Amino acid sequence: MSHAQPLWRRAVAEALGTGLLVTVVVGSGIAAASLSPSDTGVQLLENSFATALGLAVLILMLGPVSGAHFNPAVSVIDWWLGQRTGSGLTGRDLAAYIPAQIGGGVAGAILANLMYGEPAVSWSTKHRSAGHLYLGETVATAGLILLIFALAWSGRARLAPVAVGAYIGAAYWFTSSTSFANPAVTIGRAFSDTFAGIAPSSVPGFIFFQAFGAILGAALVVVLYPRASEAADNVATPQSDTTHTGASA
Amino acid sequence: MSHAQPLWRRAVAEALGTGLLVTVVVGSGIAAASLSPSDTGVQLLENSFATALGLAVLILMLGPVSGAHFNPAVSVIDWWLGQRTGSGLTGRDLAAYIPAQIGGGVAGAILANLMYGEPAVSWSTKHRSAGHLYLGETVATAGLILLIFALAWSGRARLAPVAVGAYIGAAYWFTSSTSFANPAVTIGRAFSDTFAGIAPSSVPGFIFFQAFGAILGAALVVVLYPRASEAADNVATPQSDTTHTGASA
Amino acid sequence: MSHAQPLWRRAVAEALGTGLLVTVVVGSGIAAASLSPSDTGVQLLENSFATALGLAVLILMLGPVSGAHFNPAVSVIDWWLGQRTGSGLTGRDLAAYIPAQIGGGVAGAILANLMYGEPAVSWSTKHRSAGHLYLGETVATAGLILLIFALAWSGRARLAPVAVGAYIGAAYWFTSSTSFANPAVTIGRAFSDTFAGIAPSSVPGFIFFQAFGAILGAALVVVLYPRASEAADNVATPQSDTTHTGASA
Amino acid sequence: MSHAQPLWRRAVAEALGTGLLVTVVVGSGIAAASLSPSDTGVQLLENSFATALGLAVLILMLGPVSGAHFNPAVSVIDWWLGQRTGSGLTGRDLAAYIPAQIGGGVAGAILANLMYGEPAVSWSTKHRSAGHLYLGETVATAGLILLIFALAWSGRARLAPVAVGAYIGAAYWFTSSTSFANPAVTIGRAFSDTFAGIAPSSVPGFIFFQAFGAILGAALVVVLYPRASEAADNVATPQSDTTHTGASA
Repeated sequence: MSHAQPLWRRAVAEALGTGLLVTVVVGSGIAAASLSPSDTGVQLLENSFATALGLAVLILMLGPVSGAHFNPAVSVIDWWLGQRTGSGLTGRDLAAYIPAQIGGGVAGAILANLMYGEPAVSWSTKHRSAGHLYLGETVATAGLILLIFALAWSGRARLAPVAVGAYIGAAYWFTSSTSFANPAVTIGRAFSDTFAGIAPSSVPGFIFFQAFGAILGAALVVVLYPRASEAADNVATPQSDTTHTGASA
Repeated sequence: MSHAQPLWRRAVAEALGTGLLVTVVVGSGIAAASLSPSDTGVQLLENSFATALGLAVLILMLGPVSGAHFNPAVSVIDWWLGQRTGSGLTGRDLAAYIPAQIGGGVAGAILANLMYGEPAVSWSTKHRSAGHLYLGETVATAGLILLIFALAWSGRARLAPVAVGAYIGAAYWFTSSTSFANPAVTIGRAFSDTFAGIAPSSVPGFIFFQAFGAILGAALVVVLYPRASEAADNVATPQSDTTHTGASA
Repeated sequence: MSHAQPLWRRAVAEALGTGLLVTVVVGSGIAAASLSPSDTGVQLLENSFATALGLAVLILMLGPVSGAHFNPAVSVIDWWLGQRTGSGLTGRDLAAYIPAQIGGGVAGAILANLMYGEPAVSWSTKHRSAGHLYLGETVATAGLILLIFALAWSGRARLAPVAVGAYIGAAYWFTSSTSFANPAVTIGRAFSDTFAGIAPSSVPGFIFFQAFGAILGAALVVVLYPRASEAADNVATPQSDTTHTGASA
Repeated sequence: MSHAQPLWRRAVAEALGTGLLVTVVVGSGIAAASLSPSDTGVQLLENSFATALGLAVLILMLGPVSGAHFNPAVSVIDWWLGQRTGSGLTGRDLAAYIPAQIGGGVAGAILANLMYGEPAVSWSTKHRSAGHLYLGETVATAGLILLIFALAWSGRARLAPVAVGAYIGAAYWFTSSTSFANPAVTIGRAFSDTFAGIAPSSVPGFIFFQAFGAILGAALVVVLYPRASEAADNVATPQSDTTHTGASA
């Protein structure tokens, strides 16, 4: 049903959703760092609490329009694996989704900066580059991809909003990199020199290992859920207008 | 089914629900500020934890009676957009809901004050007026309206209790204004000179930008969910007495 | 279906559930006070986090056996209102439930004391008696009763585990009394001179206002949900063995 | 349906899931201890927040493949009680599950160490041996077994992901031992000299009382849910590929 929407509307939803996701991440990070200056852990607890709830809500809000990917890694894997199941994005879809996600992510960082009375853009000076952080991004992205497609391929995509929100809330803590796991969000977070920022020079390394993790996650999906059947849901389309009545989240 | 209830009962539910919502916000704010004096962020974490849970519960508790709007912005948009779908509040409904919400909100603040041994009314002295705070209220209210009507127009209103609670829990953090997003609650919070209060002189500015945000949110709903069909649920009526058995949240 | 269980088994479930509820409340209170000595608010956050999750789980665990009341106020109101709907506890049920709940509550406090290496019984010295605290207990219990019967009488009892857990998690914060709202738990908490304790001399006052709040809550149920029909669920029996397949939480 | 999967795939899922569970526990413990050095309670709050969310997600991710036991105590009780219901693991299954769980648990600790730039293995020096801690493990494991089989035997296994996550989140706080409740996770946690570690010499005592608690929990299941019927779900298989459409969580 998601694919029955015109592409322009789906791209608007991806831009809006990715943008608001970055607004949630960056905005709550600014608030946390400002209000809890003496304990970095409490800052991250506040940031992860807000992100887990906000991400779940955004997927609920926009899932029926675009599938609520908000993440080029998810969109690319959906296109790639979809050639197997015949249910993924097309190449044309991908060419609209990815720019929308990146543009939205940048706009979302600017919105967060403005809401907190900061300059619209301030390049982050927070360097994040080390082997163990790259391992963190690899694990974080692999787990995210495995989760999303495990749910979709077993006909449980309606659980994706809560599950993906919970996953990211946990991954802020169990990965050393605080789990960016999303190239568009990574780019957006470079535009804010605040708690959740990342220095532009650290962005390519993060994206490289996110791509590696995404491939690893896709391989795990294929090993663990080999029979993607007609029962498979579209990725991250939690409820459609027409099929919701029989099954609910 | 909600509309099968007599209007007086629905108005009682709106007054009770809006009142208890303000009691939750103000009461937990008093407790947080008193118990965690050294970290404002921890106070907001406690306040947002209690509000997210409490708001979800109140919508569950009263949704089948009145729709659980608890918010004049939601009621007005429901009336306005309902002229398109034929399912919203009538003008007469609106004339009962809004005074009930405002009266309830004020009573709720008084109840919170009394429960904590404060004077029944103490005008807040917390000034909240700045351009970036107004941007925060605009974003907060637009997102709330988009969320509620996106769920209702895609037949997922049963998810509204958890989704709206989670949204506000996150928005306390990602908007600079801590997301009042509700004119009746804003008025109520002026009656308590405590953590969650707002100076009476700051109330009109907040309400103005909440109205602006609500219009923006309604426009996004129309763009993203253009086909409000007969599958649409009534707004924020999570479960009715008669249709709950086939689909659940 | 709950009533198809023999009464002895239902009484065992009520004793076990009320006991473990007190263990959760008292045990997490001991841990919180010991581990976070410098911030009482953080202690209450930890205590409320554990209680909200634990209470929801206990209702899921034992609901199909006994209805998971764990609370004499709920059981008495269920018997009282049940004379209206024909679906509540009988007088004989009540005579088994209430002693089981109280005995379980005391045992649960002892278990918590022993798990933390404290003496099995230490009478609490925490005095809790003041008009504003009694107002808190009244509000807390009225809200709890309204919530439980609103869900049951609108056919949504399957949502009770999560809703009741969330309600208590919020009420720890928005009521000045930290929401005991349960005579059996109040008695149990007198047996531990720790964070969650209550001095024995304060117990009668709390129970008196819990009873008053319960009556107030029952009155609100009757006003707001006047038509308890055959669609009504048994109170706090979230899922039965036989009807779960069509509707889920 | 879970049993329709080849055993090798199910063993891979058990190893992966148990491994990632230990990664979540140990990794978030390292982050918490590093970021919140001044308050042990806040560290445990962060650790329990991440574990509750992460465990729920892992059960969702892998439940349809292997049943998502991730715990030798659960697998053994499933085999033992399954001889009664005819639906449990076989002895051959058990011989694959348990080594996979233990091996996965160790690998997960190593992964967490590496993600945080620690040596791959550092034996924990945190001694955990005392009668009251053993009582804690007994209670924690008994409650976990009762919860899982109560859900399965009443046809509500689809709720296991959220319920088990919530249970462990609460049990971190209400048991004095912080609720290991899992022999494979206990062994894995010996491989990291960090916040969540346990000295190897303390491991046997913990496992002994976990076994005792598991037997106690199984006894409670048999007393409280005596009629395991054909309505019973497979343990911890929240949703299968083929039956999900009629009932959902």
